[in-house]
Amino acid sequence: MTPPVPPRQPTGAPWESSDFLRACRREPVSRTPVWFMRQAGRYMPEYRAIKERASFLEMCRTPDLAVEVTLQPVRALGVDAAILFSDILITAEAMGIRVEFAPGPQIPEPVRSRADVEALRVPDPAAAVPFVLEAVRRLRAELPPEVPLIGFSGAPWTLANYVVEGGGSKEFVRMKQLCYEDPETAELLLDKLAATNAAYLAAQIAAGAQAVQIFDTWAGILDPDDYARWALPYVQRMVRAVKASAPDAPVIYFARDSGCALPLLDRSGADVLSIDWRIPLDRARETFGHGLALQGNLDPVALFAPWDELRRRADLVLERAGRMPGHIFNLGHGILVGTPVDSVRRLVEYVHERTAR
Amino acid sequence: MTPPVPPRQPTGAPWESSDFLRACRREPVSRTPVWFMRQAGRYMPEYRAIKERASFLEMCRTPDLAVEVTLQPVRALGVDAAILFSDILITAEAMGIRVEFAPGPQIPEPVRSRADVEALRVPDPAAAVPFVLEAVRRLRAELPPEVPLIGFSGAPWTLANYVVEGGGSKEFVRMKQLCYEDPETAELLLDKLAATNAAYLAAQIAAGAQAVQIFDTWAGILDPDDYARWALPYVQRMVRAVKASAPDAPVIYFARDSGCALPLLDRSGADVLSIDWRIPLDRARETFGHGLALQGNLDPVALFAPWDELRRRADLVLERAGRMPGHIFNLGHGILVGTPVDSVRRLVEYVHERTAR
Repeated sequence: MTPPVPPRQPTGAPWESSDFLRACRREPVSRTPVWFMRQAGRYMPEYRAIKERASFLEMCRTPDLAVEVTLQPVRALGVDAAILFSDILITAEAMGIRVEFAPGPQIPEPVRSRADVEALRVPDPAAAVPFVLEAVRRLRAELPPEVPLIGFSGAPWTLANYVVEGGGSKEFVRMKQLCYEDPETAELLLDKLAATNAAYLAAQIAAGAQAVQIFDTWAGILDPDDYARWALPYVQRMVRAVKASAPDAPVIYFARDSGCALPLLDRSGADVLSIDWRIPLDRARETFGHGLALQGNLDPVALFAPWDELRRRADLVLERAGRMPGHIFNLGHGILVGTPVDSVRRLVEYVHERTAR
Repeated sequence: MTPPVPPRQPTGAPWESSDFLRACRREPVSRTPVWFMRQAGRYMPEYRAIKERASFLEMCRTPDLAVEVTLQPVRALGVDAAILFSDILITAEAMGIRVEFAPGPQIPEPVRSRADVEALRVPDPAAAVPFVLEAVRRLRAELPPEVPLIGFSGAPWTLANYVVEGGGSKEFVRMKQLCYEDPETAELLLDKLAATNAAYLAAQIAAGAQAVQIFDTWAGILDPDDYARWALPYVQRMVRAVKASAPDAPVIYFARDSGCALPLLDRSGADVLSIDWRIPLDRARETFGHGLALQGNLDPVALFAPWDELRRRADLVLERAGRMPGHIFNLGHGILVGTPVDSVRRLVEYVHERTAR
């Protein structure tokens, strides 16, 4: 299913004609836009300097720091879009779940019972996470006007796994177990996560973000049937709700490790699908046709390669993306700790030069 | 490509007409055979009792203990095949790499340089791992004669990732980095791992195993191009070498999380493909036709479900496997810690009853 291109009402803002937003809308670009998932992070010395004096959660909660860290890769790398520095678990906290980072996410009192789920709030973002919206407003004011700002949230399935398991896990047994044993409680949790995160994305757009991305990091633990039952419908609900409040802001959906569910992904209703590095972009294009844009999908480890090999792999991504409008260059997952900053910068330049029309 | 059925020379041994070996050969069975990856393990109280008095490596190295632990699930569950209790890193140790478990695998001196790789032995299994072959011999003598014994090893790509990284990892950056920076050294390492593990499998068959499985746990970190370049050729080499020495013993290949590389898997030359739980068996059958047998592929977490849900999911696996010969019921990955033993036992009974011809 190909979502229709929404009727767009140009505002004349300078970012509207940016290559990033044009690519999201599948319009011709001056050169292929580039940004990177987790482009603000520990691989950058500027980031580590701030991290030395503030915890990860303090960085998320303090607009000064979140703004600074968001701007770092825009300044250092010349990427075509900024993405808000934050964490997908910020909304879990806003729902009433205690979240810690040590350094991975820890939820000391996991959500397990019907009563636990019923006790969760569906918060008003302006009241619950004012610091995020403040960071978005300031970023829109401080970013170069031609650079769009991307907001983001987690997908309901992915967030549910963290809050039910109590943190990260290799197998995430507990959320599946809840789905088997008490499907209604699992559905209520996913409903609340979808409502909370849809409102959160809409609030980020209202505060100044031009596009939003939904991260479904743990989509890949589900077989296609379970993906269609437990993950996809809640992403669809989020996309519909965001579109109802902000029809012109592109929605990007990233489902990690989702090769087996590939043919289902465009039912999400997203304008752009961010493709895992293990799915060749030409295969994704064959599957989806040209009714949506594709983002991706270099293997993040390729940034550790010598330049000739990195360039060869970047060329392959561009070749598989094809010449039709609607490609945003990115990785197939987030930038890894230890990635050489020079390689990232050189890659941005290379993609820009190579694709200049 | 469909590998030809090897010319078989029946020996008249009682295990030859077992449903497991018949299914591997795509012959009609009396009922669908069942076994489970990691069927000997911490979820069983009998296993934990032994684990209390011996470390994991002691259990692997002591034939008395390895035999006992291998027999436990055969006695307790009524499965159709035994699989040797051991670890894929046992051959890394035999090559001269120090391996510890704490409890995950740790390699204190990882293999990184050309010199490190050159220093690795390709050992004679009889001299290097006599305890494994002794366990196999004793198992063949102690197992009920109608129950086949499965030997196993790791796949070269998977083993290379452990020994180069220095243990388990989320991203396994270092082996890919070696492939980019010094492909010849990466190839030499994979060559040595293939030669070692092929000889190891052949020795297990000579000592009394009726079939062998190659575990490619980390196949799924590669995109299809890299899988074809760095993983598949070394599995092919192993399968050819095993077939040269033991043409009648079925070879099973399990490539975890390999949905994106699915169409390449039958080039491995294996007689049986063990299918990850995220790949529907009917899709695998469509991809491969009937020239090989399929094993799998229940989601291991389904064993935590209430019986009605577990049964529904087992039915779905059987339905997708179809009615043609050549299906071995198994999970789509190993049994998880905490799995209820009663559910496992009940599932074996159910599959047997449901499929009785």
